[in-house]
Amino acid sequence: MLSSTALSVIPLSSLADSIKDGSPSWMTTAGKPFNEYGLPSPQEINTKREIFQPYEEYAPGSGVAMTPLEKLEGIITPNGLHFERSHNGVPSIDARQHEFLIHGLVNKPLVFKIEDLLKYPMETRTYFIECGGNSFYNSNAFPIAIDRTCGSIHGLISTSEWTGIPLKTLLNEAGIKKEALWLLAEGADAAAMSRSIPLEKALDDTLIALFQNGERIRPEQGYPMRLVVPGWEGNISIKWLRRIKLTKKPTYTKDETSKYSDLLANGKTLQFTFPMEVKSIITQPSAGPIQINKGPVHITGLAWSGLGNIKKVEISTDKGITWNKAKIEGSNQSLAPVRFRYNWIWNGEECYISSRATDNKNNIQPQRKDWSIKYGLGHLYHNNSIQIWRINQKGQVFNEYDDLAQNEKWSED
Amino acid sequence: MLSSTALSVIPLSSLADSIKDGSPSWMTTAGKPFNEYGLPSPQEINTKREIFQPYEEYAPGSGVAMTPLEKLEGIITPNGLHFERSHNGVPSIDARQHEFLIHGLVNKPLVFKIEDLLKYPMETRTYFIECGGNSFYNSNAFPIAIDRTCGSIHGLISTSEWTGIPLKTLLNEAGIKKEALWLLAEGADAAAMSRSIPLEKALDDTLIALFQNGERIRPEQGYPMRLVVPGWEGNISIKWLRRIKLTKKPTYTKDETSKYSDLLANGKTLQFTFPMEVKSIITQPSAGPIQINKGPVHITGLAWSGLGNIKKVEISTDKGITWNKAKIEGSNQSLAPVRFRYNWIWNGEECYISSRATDNKNNIQPQRKDWSIKYGLGHLYHNNSIQIWRINQKGQVFNEYDDLAQNEKWSED
Repeated sequence: MLSSTALSVIPLSSLADSIKDGSPSWMTTAGKPFNEYGLPSPQEINTKREIFQPYEEYAPGSGVAMTPLEKLEGIITPNGLHFERSHNGVPSIDARQHEFLIHGLVNKPLVFKIEDLLKYPMETRTYFIECGGNSFYNSNAFPIAIDRTCGSIHGLISTSEWTGIPLKTLLNEAGIKKEALWLLAEGADAAAMSRSIPLEKALDDTLIALFQNGERIRPEQGYPMRLVVPGWEGNISIKWLRRIKLTKKPTYTKDETSKYSDLLANGKTLQFTFPMEVKSIITQPSAGPIQINKGPVHITGLAWSGLGNIKKVEISTDKGITWNKAKIEGSNQSLAPVRFRYNWIWNGEECYISSRATDNKNNIQPQRKDWSIKYGLGHLYHNNSIQIWRINQKGQVFNEYDDLAQNEKWSED
Repeated sequence: MLSSTALSVIPLSSLADSIKDGSPSWMTTAGKPFNEYGLPSPQEINTKREIFQPYEEYAPGSGVAMTPLEKLEGIITPNGLHFERSHNGVPSIDARQHEFLIHGLVNKPLVFKIEDLLKYPMETRTYFIECGGNSFYNSNAFPIAIDRTCGSIHGLISTSEWTGIPLKTLLNEAGIKKEALWLLAEGADAAAMSRSIPLEKALDDTLIALFQNGERIRPEQGYPMRLVVPGWEGNISIKWLRRIKLTKKPTYTKDETSKYSDLLANGKTLQFTFPMEVKSIITQPSAGPIQINKGPVHITGLAWSGLGNIKKVEISTDKGITWNKAKIEGSNQSLAPVRFRYNWIWNGEECYISSRATDNKNNIQPQRKDWSIKYGLGHLYHNNSIQIWRINQKGQVFNEYDDLAQNEKWSED
């Protein structure tokens, strides 16, 4: 351990200079007073979400704000940096006026105010939410993304401790009619974002969430309330939730026909592919302005599966020829990500590093070429393929995937 | 489950009105655009830290800002609401200039810059930090605190996912001399906050932390780096850490002689009482403006121990005569808090509710009178006694402890 971590330190002579010059200014003047709600240091202003607004002129509220994965550590995403996917902006909902309706195939339709919901028994669970379109820059839809950072490729995944009411508590209170098999969940935003969800999942682990990492849910994550459908495509976790209607069949809403369906290579389309598959990303080192140095390098990243928990994460530093097990951190509870860590000695030569996760159902993260050929041109959802980072001799890191869909072997350039 | 959670809901007629009047404004106009770093809803502005500055005129940076426990859920504290204890304000440290020195009884003194430290292998752990003086309002020093909320009595505990370098990695790199048994850790704030720590703990689970809930540590929690000495008195987790000096004996700094020592009833004083003992607090319902209603009430709160993890939490709703086990949530890893939950039916009569935690070393949280009589007048540290909330017939909740130090039975008024 010691030898592999003996990194360069500043010569002791510089300390002598520092002492000679006296104490730094922040030790000789009183510091700032207390504040009621803290913010990050102004020196960390570049740790921010990257915004992508494809229709900026006529629909500025349609797009994404991506979590800067390469700047972050641990498993939890701080609330200010949780990714956002909005279809028509963030609504300014008056929490006192907001109403949540349960209707359709129930014995007794119910309407709740937030103040009612806050009195119910709650549960706290750590879950990731990943947008169905995460990693779209590395999909069939966007052929080249060589100049993008880890977060701006893969930053549509974030993790919070969610606290809320099990949806089954409220559905049981309304009384579920025998013929109900699905439900429609609809948001109170100006896109009325809506999706169909099988009743079985709703009665399993779905939450009516009111709190995110301890405090009330942030506006861009659904204030005052959202659905959390753990492990499934992010947009099913309807934000700004206003109603749930129990139905016999799926509703086939605009948001599950025009979008969030998967075009296959044979021209057919899959619909209702709910779980986000097993996936991992090396977040450091990763593409970006920071270069690595020859010698010990700490490789770390995140792994998750919408189908269970993580059995193992393996690292390759030799184009995928050999794989070595990484250390895993976290509770590794179902549908919560883990952080993986792997200490490596870089010999200074060009190489390719990648991570590969396996979940407890033995699903293995695919290579990009194997993932890509299943789908049609322009497809971008459910991209859980292996991310390869190329490191050149200068220690610069690049997104590498260009030729993998065409070639059997990894690209050399 | 169903019957105990069937709380009052709004009559369906009000829904019909809502539909008749058309959609709310937030569904008929586009929402707000994306932002790079999110903030809580302006409607949640009262979820804030309470500031206590006992020497406001001549030392405004000496005091505390307390976590509003009664407004929060789950286990993680959002970074903006993590409690703060500062002795001379929050220093504005230039992270590029900041230096961290390891010296004293080492083979090779070392100085690190932040950019060096960021390259080291890290670990992520969920730990609470509790100020040694937490719950001082219910201690021997402050005789009456009947009008205070849960957070303003007990809010000097917060929990984060801390990521950093095991201190042992850096100490081993410097080379520990045989005679070293203690270390001095000193902050770069204008109080030069400093404490003595046994080397054994430093080599066990102590972290040089750089990240808090995923992002870089906030200024008031030690930016750009702090010590995290898990489970021990909070002020030992030196913020704005600038040096560690290995020593043969404790340094007996001003911060462990003038403060953070425990005056006993017999006039003697204990020094170096490091671990924070087993403790629990009901956060809801708790003293404050929210009244409870007759019928089902969801009791919840936090439990932790600086000596291990939590074996059980029990709830009493009848003046401590009978105790019932609460449900526990969280990873329950060592030195991480758990959240407990207990569904109760309130019959509308005056009563006293309290929680009692037991850790895996079988330490049991004491009654306040038993805790209090051990210590001298004015003592306030290490108050892990049971919190009693009195509920009157109107459903109002009050801090109740006044006579417990004198009387064998619980106070009736």
